[in-house]
Amino acid sequence: MKVVRFETAGEISFGILDEADGGGIEIVELAADPLVAGFDTTGRRLRLEDVRLLAPVIPRSKVVCVGKNYADHVEEMRSETGGETPEEPLLFLKPNTSVIGPGDRIVRPEISDRVEHEGELAMVIGAVAKNVPEDEALKYVFGFTCANDVTARDLQIADGQWTRGKGFDTFCPLGPVIETDPDLEDARVVTRVNGQIRQDGRTSQLIFSLARIVAHASQAFTLLPGDVILTGTPAGVGRLEAGDTVEVEIDGIGILRNTVV
Amino acid sequence: MKVVRFETAGEISFGILDEADGGGIEIVELAADPLVAGFDTTGRRLRLEDVRLLAPVIPRSKVVCVGKNYADHVEEMRSETGGETPEEPLLFLKPNTSVIGPGDRIVRPEISDRVEHEGELAMVIGAVAKNVPEDEALKYVFGFTCANDVTARDLQIADGQWTRGKGFDTFCPLGPVIETDPDLEDARVVTRVNGQIRQDGRTSQLIFSLARIVAHASQAFTLLPGDVILTGTPAGVGRLEAGDTVEVEIDGIGILRNTVV
Repeated sequence: MKVVRFETAGEISFGILDEADGGGIEIVELAADPLVAGFDTTGRRLRLEDVRLLAPVIPRSKVVCVGKNYADHVEEMRSETGGETPEEPLLFLKPNTSVIGPGDRIVRPEISDRVEHEGELAMVIGAVAKNVPEDEALKYVFGFTCANDVTARDLQIADGQWTRGKGFDTFCPLGPVIETDPDLEDARVVTRVNGQIRQDGRTSQLIFSLARIVAHASQAFTLLPGDVILTGTPAGVGRLEAGDTVEVEIDGIGILRNTVV
Repeated sequence: MKVVRFETAGEISFGILDEADGGGIEIVELAADPLVAGFDTTGRRLRLEDVRLLAPVIPRSKVVCVGKNYADHVEEMRSETGGETPEEPLLFLKPNTSVIGPGDRIVRPEISDRVEHEGELAMVIGAVAKNVPEDEALKYVFGFTCANDVTARDLQIADGQWTRGKGFDTFCPLGPVIETDPDLEDARVVTRVNGQIRQDGRTSQLIFSLARIVAHASQAFTLLPGDVILTGTPAGVGRLEAGDTVEVEIDGIGILRNTVV
């Protein structure tokens, strides 16, 4: 199922995507947030083009991120943020104030000269998770979405701690949907800028598996429903300039598209 | 005013401390969270010893922390986390799931052999703040409380990124009150373990002022009401063992006391 959060006529609702009778895609409206209230529907159906899609989730607590989780990206960052492949998933946080939705604008802050894209697969937590074992970890995941771990690379490097460079408002686009059951054995994670491919990885290349990441993060933090975990980015990170359109596309999930101002 | 959040008979309320007629301290119950609803009272008064004080705020978004903000602490950490005094406040985040209240227990995680205290002054944000100038920054602060930036030093050093080592559940004790108008020109910030002084600093020693910290953080993140900013720790950080009692006391605010398990 593809879960969306959307705004129409000033009201925010949740829904799931469905094929329309005459072709095209419709939204079946849900009675409430499916993360907490299941999939009861209101009976209302809307055309996808009649709504504005929003970030499918706003975390109440955390956006947890994993650094250095594709070998080719570890290699390309060797001279700038240190080159070792970590022995465990390397965690950092983005604040929920950095989250934006599909179609929203990424704002380059004045104090950075080098804002870069990092297209990633993201997991949305569905149940309270603390010290969960790896072989049960994916039961705590509600679904998956596309994410862009936008980074002010100059500030990330200058600070040493990555929080500020990765935590600016608008630096965590999420969406367009949460797919509850994608095939992620070997899904392609591609990032394009103005239509040109910049990053092109596959989930089979992750150094630490999705289950390992959830288990590891839950050892440190209690994960709450709606928390989001970004799983790392493949090689090819690069600059975003004003006017650019950046897309993160993941097989079976969709395309997260944002413009840069 | 000293604002508290408390539980009595299973209900959570807010209040302000007041002298009782016959001596001692009473709580004047507030109608709602004063961060959003002001200081209307319910007319009910409770004795302080009849309630359980809670963390005076649970951030909806962020606990922002400042590293290396006392010169003597920068010096003592030189060999372990790098020795430069930063040119700007160095920011990192703790998740809201790490927050506990006065009297709550700090849980040492099994995967760390070295959990340490860092007593600090904390600011509680009262209004949405984005790109605020330094000379207006303190208008956005609702009040001040005591904090303990508990740190798994071994994991902080191993990861390089400080998020995990400082983000465990129970690693952010806050309280016991939010003082809305303390004198912080030269307030003492003292941390005791089992009654012995371990850290003893004064707010006059801060490298970056409170206003500078708020202005700097608001350049990166939109600060929301209820966000908390920890302002850095003086020299003398050290180990916490099971059974220890750790206290952070700040002039004019109070004593934040927690036990370690």
